[in-house]
Amino acid sequence: MTTASQPAAAPDTAPAATRPAPGASLTLALAQVNATLGDFAANAALVFDYVDRAAARGVDLVAFPEMVLTGYPVEDLALRGSFVRASQQTLAEVAATLAERGHGALPVVVGYLDANAEGRPQNCAAVLREGRVETTYVKHHLPNYGVFDEFRIFASGSEARTFDVRGHTVALAICEDLWQDGGPVAQTRELGADLLLVLNGSPYERDKDDLRLSLCQRRAAEAGCPLAYVNLVGAQDDLVFDGDSLVVDAAGTMLARAQQFHEELLVVDLAATPSAPAARLDDTAEVYQALVVGLRDYVVKNGFSSVVLGLSGGIDSALVAAIAADAIGGENVYGVSMPSMYSSEHSKDDARDSAERIGLNYQVQPIAGLVTPFVEQLGLTGVSEENVQARCRGVILMGLSNQHGHLVLATGNKTELAVGYSTIYGDAVGGYAPIKDCPKTLVWDLARHRNRLAEAEGKTAPIPENSITKPPSAELRPGQVDQDSLPPYPELDAVLEGYVTHAQGRDELIAAGHDAECVDLVLRLVDRAEWKRRQYPPGPKVSAIAFGRDRRLPITSRWREQLHRK
Amino acid sequence: MTTASQPAAAPDTAPAATRPAPGASLTLALAQVNATLGDFAANAALVFDYVDRAAARGVDLVAFPEMVLTGYPVEDLALRGSFVRASQQTLAEVAATLAERGHGALPVVVGYLDANAEGRPQNCAAVLREGRVETTYVKHHLPNYGVFDEFRIFASGSEARTFDVRGHTVALAICEDLWQDGGPVAQTRELGADLLLVLNGSPYERDKDDLRLSLCQRRAAEAGCPLAYVNLVGAQDDLVFDGDSLVVDAAGTMLARAQQFHEELLVVDLAATPSAPAARLDDTAEVYQALVVGLRDYVVKNGFSSVVLGLSGGIDSALVAAIAADAIGGENVYGVSMPSMYSSEHSKDDARDSAERIGLNYQVQPIAGLVTPFVEQLGLTGVSEENVQARCRGVILMGLSNQHGHLVLATGNKTELAVGYSTIYGDAVGGYAPIKDCPKTLVWDLARHRNRLAEAEGKTAPIPENSITKPPSAELRPGQVDQDSLPPYPELDAVLEGYVTHAQGRDELIAAGHDAECVDLVLRLVDRAEWKRRQYPPGPKVSAIAFGRDRRLPITSRWREQLHRK
Repeated sequence: MTTASQPAAAPDTAPAATRPAPGASLTLALAQVNATLGDFAANAALVFDYVDRAAARGVDLVAFPEMVLTGYPVEDLALRGSFVRASQQTLAEVAATLAERGHGALPVVVGYLDANAEGRPQNCAAVLREGRVETTYVKHHLPNYGVFDEFRIFASGSEARTFDVRGHTVALAICEDLWQDGGPVAQTRELGADLLLVLNGSPYERDKDDLRLSLCQRRAAEAGCPLAYVNLVGAQDDLVFDGDSLVVDAAGTMLARAQQFHEELLVVDLAATPSAPAARLDDTAEVYQALVVGLRDYVVKNGFSSVVLGLSGGIDSALVAAIAADAIGGENVYGVSMPSMYSSEHSKDDARDSAERIGLNYQVQPIAGLVTPFVEQLGLTGVSEENVQARCRGVILMGLSNQHGHLVLATGNKTELAVGYSTIYGDAVGGYAPIKDCPKTLVWDLARHRNRLAEAEGKTAPIPENSITKPPSAELRPGQVDQDSLPPYPELDAVLEGYVTHAQGRDELIAAGHDAECVDLVLRLVDRAEWKRRQYPPGPKVSAIAFGRDRRLPITSRWREQLHRK
Repeated sequence: MTTASQPAAAPDTAPAATRPAPGASLTLALAQVNATLGDFAANAALVFDYVDRAAARGVDLVAFPEMVLTGYPVEDLALRGSFVRASQQTLAEVAATLAERGHGALPVVVGYLDANAEGRPQNCAAVLREGRVETTYVKHHLPNYGVFDEFRIFASGSEARTFDVRGHTVALAICEDLWQDGGPVAQTRELGADLLLVLNGSPYERDKDDLRLSLCQRRAAEAGCPLAYVNLVGAQDDLVFDGDSLVVDAAGTMLARAQQFHEELLVVDLAATPSAPAARLDDTAEVYQALVVGLRDYVVKNGFSSVVLGLSGGIDSALVAAIAADAIGGENVYGVSMPSMYSSEHSKDDARDSAERIGLNYQVQPIAGLVTPFVEQLGLTGVSEENVQARCRGVILMGLSNQHGHLVLATGNKTELAVGYSTIYGDAVGGYAPIKDCPKTLVWDLARHRNRLAEAEGKTAPIPENSITKPPSAELRPGQVDQDSLPPYPELDAVLEGYVTHAQGRDELIAAGHDAECVDLVLRLVDRAEWKRRQYPPGPKVSAIAFGRDRRLPITSRWREQLHRK
């Protein structure tokens, strides 16, 4: 409970900071930082570091993102009393320490986890000043859709909270409060506030940055004052935070915008001429960067320093290797070629080529001598035999992981995951799956993007051209190619986009021009692969609806669209 | 939208049913049925069958459980327009067909999925009479905790709905409406209703039946009238529904209670002397029955007819084999002994003994010739070598599954899952994990219970006594036993109960008398195994907090209780 965790005010220890002249415009510092879930000491240190830097620039106010002290999202950790108490205690300590470090007079706004009088957890923001918690705000609107479960874990607030900064009234809001009508935005206008400060933990997805800017512009107009939006960067399990912190004035003019996917202290004088915002990444570059950040943070925050993956010579593993090298350095990436008797020469060549281009650690582990004993002992044939090849590769990767401490990367793409074209416990093994939310057609775009980037920088393109241009094949039997049993990828991905992302039914998909036979095939494949997706490793969400907590479907289900035609 | 899906009334086609004399007391039929998710035709057929049977007994009213037409829980299928329309259409067809079958005059209450005027899905009940949808009720209270995500997918209702049965006013409620104060129960009293009819999809967990009865008694008193509670039976993914439908009068006297875990048409004359309720199972018998139902429905509803599992000679696999045989018959169970060089003679003997007692299909697949090539080719040692043994067993089971169409059962218990003492992609492979929510100490209780039951019936005890009494061991190296690296199971399970089920922190656990070193070890093991649990197959929830959607925790987390001591 907030009151219990408030330390005594410590005004005596707060030396005068460098402050602008009274009456001047406000200068804000938005601290776009990468918090680590549950690492209260590290997150507090991040606050101290950014406040030091902001204070050195003479700002009037420093703001951090939603739940910066705990990391975000905390999920059911919110329901653990010990975790809530650690957050409350950290908040009090941060307030006291900021004053001890000479920042007592500078208001600092942080997101944290608190609990109400009934002990129910709440998603809160606190204004820290003069060594104490000056005021707290409780998030009004709790998102409970898509990846969000906040109604499950939090009690909502309903009251507006403002604080004074040199005669300016600053109103508070947290993330979803901005996306929903009513509540804090309307209250900000009623209170005649001079600034609406919004703390966010807003995960990346394609095209969301455009939405975000126009939303901020609209809400600033509704609030009748400038709006400052500060967001997290970095990744937490399947979510990537892209930052994109920004400030707009009451007329919607963008005053400043932070870079995407990197930590930044964005300092903005509300009265100054708009500064040139950081350059925006194009759509494909943005996704690529999200994948790099997602992978890096999963590796680092989970205490790994290296990764291992199978290199087949195909586009998926070549792209994942390039992402991994960009994230943690090629010297920390271990690529394993695991050829079978069905592997083509070009596959083996392309795998080696990929490894050499990236400069990763490369080894060849043929599987024939591992597969044959299973096939013979168990009398396996057909698909059962094909799966054993994939599973022996899985055993190799996990063995190398156990022996050397590498994190295993699964290289499956979203299309494959959707239709179930992977072998569970085979190519699906891994702790993290970097491209699981990227459809095959996007995989090609990402590979071409990364190669173009290298060429523009005069460097070696990391992905072999042959891996991009050749027909995809699992090479589990002679001459097999994906298109033997699947529709062409552009058509397949278009049907999946309609079915998975937009929840279109069979009739709508056919009305949209898709071939009925193709639709029936795809829907059947998607529906029956749910059990496999449940056991697939996590990976970064980049689309509107990623497989995982974005899309919660029963495994046991006899629902079939084609049985319910109009 | 309900109005659009209502067919024209068809009174002409409704022949007179056998009805009690006007003014007599009500006779209800509660149809405790096993619906199948998404199988609208089968669920409609179930309604027709039970209404036929109820009508033959001259009842005044037939009631089915929550969402009987769709199955429950539908999860994000509720967000698919095609699925909602199929439910609405099925409702209209069922209404019309009931009249065509001669039941037009008999009010039939079913749960189904509808949508409001804005297109948002709603969890509804409908009264069907005279070939049409006479009235509909929308669930007021949407559970969004534990395994429930109803706030995510449904819009709530707020209005009371009653209908008339021969001059008696019957009020409606759905499941959570009964568990929350206010709403339909209070409205029932205000409306002076003569009966509160509650449709439920209430999953089994230990001790919940006692709660349920006392809740019904309390709510009947509040409503000031008798209360009829009708629940689903059967299983859906990780949830088992135990039925336990019951009727209490306004004074809380139990008038009738259906059996647990079986379909039943419970017919109750509200004015008659209370009948002897079906005998209740004791606590352990109840859990065992839940496991049998969970396994049977997962197998059958997913279209399998046989299962395969590894038989190690240990208690876990012996218990799972017994459950499987009880669920689908020993002749459909395939047990595989997969001895290594470290397997003891007693393990091989106990595995064979287990198979013989149950009468399952038994084979021996030694793993030495499969493991050695991996160990030699990759140079694996220590734990890496141990894991390859488990993974080769996984490849065997999956190979037999692929070749013969068996569903693979994972045999891990909750204690193992909690502390991460399993090999991912090894003994953790499978489509379903029957005892994943049973702590090791409960596994022993269940085994003894099942053997006692056999002995009481004069049959062969299915579980070898030696499997129950010997010290548990994974036998991955010579002489290894579980207690080398884990606290004694009773102590371990007690700490896990506090930490997992009751969300107690380190300080609380130590204050409760647990050894600090043991607590620190257990908490560390539990926290770092989250990633493995995510990839574990589903299995039946029997405890208050099962691993899975009951307990949603981040994988990436630096939160450690021991760093935040008081």
